[in-house]
Amino acid sequence: MFGLTPSARLRPSPFYDATLAEGVTAFTTYNNMLMPTSYGDPAAEYWRLINGVSQWDVAVERQVQLKGPDAGRLAQILAPRDLSRCVEGQGKYVPLCNHGGTLINDPILLKLADDLYWLSIADSNIWFWAGAIAAERGLDVEVSEPDVSPMAIQGPKAVDVVAHVCGDWVRDLRYFWFRETEIEGIPVVVARSGWSKQGGYEVYLCDGTKGTALWNLFREAGRPWDIGPGNPNVYERIESGLLSWGGDTDERTNPFEVRLERYIDLDVPDDTVGIAALRRIAAEGPARHQLGVILDAADIAGPGFHWREITRNGQRVGDMTNGIRSPRLDRVIGFALVSRECAPGDRVEVVMPEGPQPGTLATLPFL
Amino acid sequence: MFGLTPSARLRPSPFYDATLAEGVTAFTTYNNMLMPTSYGDPAAEYWRLINGVSQWDVAVERQVQLKGPDAGRLAQILAPRDLSRCVEGQGKYVPLCNHGGTLINDPILLKLADDLYWLSIADSNIWFWAGAIAAERGLDVEVSEPDVSPMAIQGPKAVDVVAHVCGDWVRDLRYFWFRETEIEGIPVVVARSGWSKQGGYEVYLCDGTKGTALWNLFREAGRPWDIGPGNPNVYERIESGLLSWGGDTDERTNPFEVRLERYIDLDVPDDTVGIAALRRIAAEGPARHQLGVILDAADIAGPGFHWREITRNGQRVGDMTNGIRSPRLDRVIGFALVSRECAPGDRVEVVMPEGPQPGTLATLPFL
Repeated sequence: MFGLTPSARLRPSPFYDATLAEGVTAFTTYNNMLMPTSYGDPAAEYWRLINGVSQWDVAVERQVQLKGPDAGRLAQILAPRDLSRCVEGQGKYVPLCNHGGTLINDPILLKLADDLYWLSIADSNIWFWAGAIAAERGLDVEVSEPDVSPMAIQGPKAVDVVAHVCGDWVRDLRYFWFRETEIEGIPVVVARSGWSKQGGYEVYLCDGTKGTALWNLFREAGRPWDIGPGNPNVYERIESGLLSWGGDTDERTNPFEVRLERYIDLDVPDDTVGIAALRRIAAEGPARHQLGVILDAADIAGPGFHWREITRNGQRVGDMTNGIRSPRLDRVIGFALVSRECAPGDRVEVVMPEGPQPGTLATLPFL
Repeated sequence: MFGLTPSARLRPSPFYDATLAEGVTAFTTYNNMLMPTSYGDPAAEYWRLINGVSQWDVAVERQVQLKGPDAGRLAQILAPRDLSRCVEGQGKYVPLCNHGGTLINDPILLKLADDLYWLSIADSNIWFWAGAIAAERGLDVEVSEPDVSPMAIQGPKAVDVVAHVCGDWVRDLRYFWFRETEIEGIPVVVARSGWSKQGGYEVYLCDGTKGTALWNLFREAGRPWDIGPGNPNVYERIESGLLSWGGDTDERTNPFEVRLERYIDLDVPDDTVGIAALRRIAAEGPARHQLGVILDAADIAGPGFHWREITRNGQRVGDMTNGIRSPRLDRVIGFALVSRECAPGDRVEVVMPEGPQPGTLATLPFL
């Protein structure tokens, strides 16, 4: 693994000191911030998420705050999903598209009030985007980055830990819903969400000076359940079929190509950015679709920085956008962004540095 | 130094294999791509730039391509600098601002034709930004990312190396001007530019499959001048007073705060994004300005991920946004973004992890 040179372009999170104390060994960058990616024991970190409870610094999931009389109007203009019945305390997964229907982010939208929304974003700059649309349309709304930094508690035992800290009301919270509260005087938003399929919560820290305090509070409270550090886990997320914007998408990917059609409402108002293009794509059908691929090989080097070409009968049909050996399936699996002429069951080859690797297309998710 | 975990969200450059062969040891990320930051011998890399010729993978300086009948119109709408006399083959440094006058990038604009411009950008997403403005204003222009990746040849001997490869015409190229040409069949744009004050060129590779070939061609041609690998050098750029967007700026920095007033033309058309705000800021004067700071200490740990608070007479007046021990000055120097009430000569303290460090404000550049 290569080193990551410090630079003030890349901001540390409020949990940075706490993750240093936990023994973080590697980072990735995301929204020009550092996110821990390893504490030195990948197997332990994986199984802790599958069987126990794992604590993640996901402050890089930054918030794009829409505040003002036109906040709700801007949210609906940006999101090709019907938000008219979204109420305070409710979150919704909203693909964002540009005017051409290309997916530019896939945040969770949180409605905090009629005049206050957050977009909890993936790894692309939506402050500039939302600010440009708001200003060009003359809307009365301020787009900003608030002092808000999520920490995730994930895994089957997460509910017990978070209930122990916050109270049993969290057990009844519906998926993507949230509540503003305080934990020992620290302002937070507690949401039932997280980038895994193992269940859990995201605790949005609303005071960046309290990162170590909040981290340690959950660390102590979680001891009876053997809580330990982890991070959005590439093995689990590939097994579970979770999309990584920018990792599994490129500059022409639309939502229909990557299994997001159920989050698109084609009858949103005509002034929604990209809706005309999305209606056209929906009518014509997308050029590509996202499947799984299972390789015959027992293991591969990966995940890496590169997409890998996929061929079928010697013709290039798309790319494998990620690939790992699944601990639970004991097979090499990945996502395939391929021509819509390809179908599950097709035999293909993935062009790896070590040579073409035969495999079979499959449906997602794997687990 | 921490490890950087591979991810397909972070793209390698066309020169990636060549830099691996050169022995790259560390990277940063920039525009969601990898940029080499060390080949294991910082002192050699620094002095090679100061006294010789250095070869850099700066493919992360991506191009935002504006193509179509309204390309020039969009360029002028985005840039609060008069482009009316910019001709084909000419480049210009153009601060880009949002509607509030905040600096959102500081690219080199290259005019390739009346209907074709590139913005060679710093580390923020201008594709989304330019695409939003173009679409919202109904302009007939396509915003895209072409297959173009700069490699820099920098240092006092760069001119000899590039003239040896391209011909003596490069000696007469004016600063920021460029020419489209081919080198052994590889399509390139050769510009007199680069992120150092040691002189040199940027060779924009226009075929991403030819990265290793282009790298090795310059590597071989440069042998008589002892060419070797390097990267945008934090020591040299601080000595020379070069701005790092995102490193030395924050979410409220305007161009007047960071010494860019000479690149702003307040009489550009009224439909230029941000011009009303810039006229107001120019009239009122900016709240902060950028100075140098020279610490009394012999050395510090740095550069790091953090800005460091600056106090004067016990009151916070701003931040040190970077800091290093200058090899040529044998002093610890940095950039200070401070209240406009501060002036060169003021005694201040910089709040470092090891304790407050006394120092003196200074003018930029240092060298």
